[in-house]
Amino acid sequence: MRFSQLYAPTLKEAPADADLISIKLLVRGGFVRKVAAGIYSFLPLGFRVLKKIEDIVRQEMNAIGSQEILMPIIQPAELWHETGRWDDYGPEMMRMQDRHERFFTLGPTHEEIITHLLRNELNSYKQLPVSLYQIAMKYRDEIRPRFGLMRSREFLMKDAYSFHGSWSSLDETYKQFYGAYSKILQRIGLEFLVVEADSGAIGGNESHEFNVLADYGESTLLYCDCGYAASDEKAEYLLQEESQEGAVADLKIVPTPNSRTVDEVSAFLEVTSRDIVKSLIYKGRKGYYMALIRGNEELNESKLKAALEDQTLVMATPQEVLDLLGVPIGFVGPIGLPKEVTIIADHTIKGLKNAVCGALKEGYHYSGVLPGRDFKIDSWHDLKMVTEGDPCPKCGAPMKSAKGIEVGHIFKLGTKYSEKMNGYVTDEKGNSIHYIMGCYGWGVSRTISAIVEQLHDENGIIWPLAVAPFDIIVTAVNIKDPIVSEKSIQLYDILSEAGFEVLLDDREISPGMKFKDADLIGIPVRITLGKKLAQGIVEVKPRTEKKPLEVSIVDGFDTLLEEIKKELSNYRPVSKMEAE
Amino acid sequence: MRFSQLYAPTLKEAPADADLISIKLLVRGGFVRKVAAGIYSFLPLGFRVLKKIEDIVRQEMNAIGSQEILMPIIQPAELWHETGRWDDYGPEMMRMQDRHERFFTLGPTHEEIITHLLRNELNSYKQLPVSLYQIAMKYRDEIRPRFGLMRSREFLMKDAYSFHGSWSSLDETYKQFYGAYSKILQRIGLEFLVVEADSGAIGGNESHEFNVLADYGESTLLYCDCGYAASDEKAEYLLQEESQEGAVADLKIVPTPNSRTVDEVSAFLEVTSRDIVKSLIYKGRKGYYMALIRGNEELNESKLKAALEDQTLVMATPQEVLDLLGVPIGFVGPIGLPKEVTIIADHTIKGLKNAVCGALKEGYHYSGVLPGRDFKIDSWHDLKMVTEGDPCPKCGAPMKSAKGIEVGHIFKLGTKYSEKMNGYVTDEKGNSIHYIMGCYGWGVSRTISAIVEQLHDENGIIWPLAVAPFDIIVTAVNIKDPIVSEKSIQLYDILSEAGFEVLLDDREISPGMKFKDADLIGIPVRITLGKKLAQGIVEVKPRTEKKPLEVSIVDGFDTLLEEIKKELSNYRPVSKMEAE
Repeated sequence: MRFSQLYAPTLKEAPADADLISIKLLVRGGFVRKVAAGIYSFLPLGFRVLKKIEDIVRQEMNAIGSQEILMPIIQPAELWHETGRWDDYGPEMMRMQDRHERFFTLGPTHEEIITHLLRNELNSYKQLPVSLYQIAMKYRDEIRPRFGLMRSREFLMKDAYSFHGSWSSLDETYKQFYGAYSKILQRIGLEFLVVEADSGAIGGNESHEFNVLADYGESTLLYCDCGYAASDEKAEYLLQEESQEGAVADLKIVPTPNSRTVDEVSAFLEVTSRDIVKSLIYKGRKGYYMALIRGNEELNESKLKAALEDQTLVMATPQEVLDLLGVPIGFVGPIGLPKEVTIIADHTIKGLKNAVCGALKEGYHYSGVLPGRDFKIDSWHDLKMVTEGDPCPKCGAPMKSAKGIEVGHIFKLGTKYSEKMNGYVTDEKGNSIHYIMGCYGWGVSRTISAIVEQLHDENGIIWPLAVAPFDIIVTAVNIKDPIVSEKSIQLYDILSEAGFEVLLDDREISPGMKFKDADLIGIPVRITLGKKLAQGIVEVKPRTEKKPLEVSIVDGFDTLLEEIKKELSNYRPVSKMEAE
Repeated sequence: MRFSQLYAPTLKEAPADADLISIKLLVRGGFVRKVAAGIYSFLPLGFRVLKKIEDIVRQEMNAIGSQEILMPIIQPAELWHETGRWDDYGPEMMRMQDRHERFFTLGPTHEEIITHLLRNELNSYKQLPVSLYQIAMKYRDEIRPRFGLMRSREFLMKDAYSFHGSWSSLDETYKQFYGAYSKILQRIGLEFLVVEADSGAIGGNESHEFNVLADYGESTLLYCDCGYAASDEKAEYLLQEESQEGAVADLKIVPTPNSRTVDEVSAFLEVTSRDIVKSLIYKGRKGYYMALIRGNEELNESKLKAALEDQTLVMATPQEVLDLLGVPIGFVGPIGLPKEVTIIADHTIKGLKNAVCGALKEGYHYSGVLPGRDFKIDSWHDLKMVTEGDPCPKCGAPMKSAKGIEVGHIFKLGTKYSEKMNGYVTDEKGNSIHYIMGCYGWGVSRTISAIVEQLHDENGIIWPLAVAPFDIIVTAVNIKDPIVSEKSIQLYDILSEAGFEVLLDDREISPGMKFKDADLIGIPVRITLGKKLAQGIVEVKPRTEKKPLEVSIVDGFDTLLEEIKKELSNYRPVSKMEAE
């Protein structure tokens, strides 16, 4: 393709609202354009990258026997009512009405649709397993769309669903997807980490996230040399229980005027934050909860939602707390709590004695608190947000942390959807059983951002060969020079015939602008036909190298072709992280 | 692929709401499933066909230098307000609000988005022409979705847009698209007719529709041996004007109790329907219109909308007419009409004398009416719905008619969108000019229905090779027979290696069911390994033939492979129409 004909408007400056290096470079390089908050158009360069990622994903899905289908984007609300997710999903689900005032959602995911699709047609265990996938647009009405393609409202996903007559069959397919996802990332050429993950609103028993490592990744990952790795939403740790034995004080109410936060109370009462019971009020489907954790720890809401099996759970507003308990949030505590509020405590509370908590009276806290003696706990759970240095749950060594961008997520759904939507098959004995399901998502458009976050430098994007919009850019420094023009077109033809995707920069602009654009859009190899062409010399420069290699074409293009093939077969950009 | 692993649930009966043979066969054959009215899922077989059509369309777009992009499905209302189409488009446009109550449409088309995309980045005529396309879902909230994929609410379209600095450049690109569209239909192997078309809500100066011929096509096409062809919405005819000369009668009001329709009035007054002025009230953006045409002709609303340049035009309701004129619709006429109602007349009114029209008085008509003398006409237009037998506008010969399914539509938009949305480029002289646009739609999912409507028989679908889900089906009659099993797998491997897409029917069901399914899903060639395999004989049967050919594999598969290659290279199913 000739650059003069390619619709790729490059920009010197990124728009002011571009908040990450990836979206800055993608906009500047003419890959994408924003249409509205979280909504993008893919221009020809961006589309080429998207298509290459899509094709790699498709090939790996086909390789594990998943069959491609296409389900509708607009989904009738009735199906979502069956599973209860019409209410559970919250305002992130885009909703609309048709001209007959029937409700639809722009699908954020397709469990309901596919369970419905198969429930009347799958009859026997003999038809199982079945694995189906699609590559299609998905919608999520982010309250604040940001990070370009990483947190957009319309995005391209590959979603797959599998159906099984036994758990062992699900396990086998789950492993195949695990392998396929790893292979996709290896083929693209990215550094990644697979972690145990929280299954959130999708549900199910087990899930893994595939994260591309990047300095500004949205996800925090905990990992250990022993092999354990989990997202911070899911990560567990080795609990070292403290004993409550030893001297205990009496419960005492103490004035704590204007001391509301953990820091304020610990300063005022001269205790450590570890000695404070942090009491947080949450509102769920069945009412109010008080979650307790030590003052020096952060509560992990994903764990709380999982423990209470309630994805609608949100922190109560200060006003709701005031209405419920008659006291501002800074003075809330578990002693004397109305019975309708369920108390759920993190394990760290167990070892507490002589602790401090809010007194349910404005301006007062209790000291000398002993959990168990002074208040009852309805249930114990691990609710702690694990951080770097916490002991690994498998081996006890201090864990490390990294930032990642989630591109894939696989789930063992089990019978969650087949139960709610009456999906049955008959098993070998003729019994009706709910089929067991798995689901497997891949963020196709998001992968573009992940690649750029990991692979770029100060001059622009560094695409891995597998997804680069073109393999080679031939830069004709002065296209008006007849020799440059002739040779660059000749070279373009030879390289195209050899099977390479070539972009010929034949624009009538300065050499500096051409070099800048070539670096910005990040094509793996640049061949420059400049002044030295008079002596039969062309330059070959991989995007990852600073200095070009000079190759003579006096005796024809064979040597050059060999050199390019060598460069491309060895081409493997590495992230700064890895390089460090 | 093995049929036992393919997710293709075939059905004996079509669902009751399937209203055309194509959707009946597509559902029965396990190609698609309905999710809600006008909303479908594509199962693996259907997806394979869809993808093949998509790929043919993509190749032909790339061949004429159009560049693939991807624009969002959800489009901000603001852009549609700029062109006025937010109001013009009516209830067929799907609308929604996001969580911030901002309005969006699920795009029925993308002129606004692409004009916006380019308006800030196209600067100079030197960047032109540019041609961009996408293949993506489109939405139309049909009041009564029907005919399966032909009139669905969510459908896959290829839409392309071109941008030019001159009309001659647009003409050139328009011709390229015309050629590419013809080639797509030739490659698929369909009988089609290209006709001049009305450009409707899209607008512009010229447009052509590409129609696949089919008995139950939605579009009526008029055509002539001289080469003229147009859709009935657009078709013109050679007007033979009658002279008004000769004796004229005086205008007379006559009672016509209970005679409201043309037929009733012509019977009651003993005049022909040709002598009656049919007066129809329409409501548009600027008010009310009365459209006049002879009683024996039908009014063409597309022509009326085009003549009045008002796509919002609808026929007034009986109540609106009563409120406006104080008389029921059966007695409406142009004599004494309030001035705020504009009179627009078809050319056929010109030759009328001694005519009859409603008297604007309940129970009365006028006779002896002479247009011009008795009432004034604000403007004359061709408003007639042309039908079979009307004289060709080019050569005067009686036109023929055919039914077609519109799969492609190309438009010369001109400057409609660049004017409304401030899209400028500088021309050679440095002047700012609005760029000139073309747009080019192709119904990708609709093409599936069109193919099946044209190519089927009483047993099922007859796919052309270019879009068949598989090239060959190998029917292993009794898969439990070890020789059948061995040979069918061997044959499957050989054919697959030879580059064919093969479906191996290894299911444990009766031979009759296998043959029925093979015919239903319409794979071009069936190879049967049955009882005669004991003598080394297999059967080869193209889908279009009644009788199989017997081929010996005693000396290996070479002869068979030759035979199959021959059959497939000659394979060209023809429509019944053509065969007749």
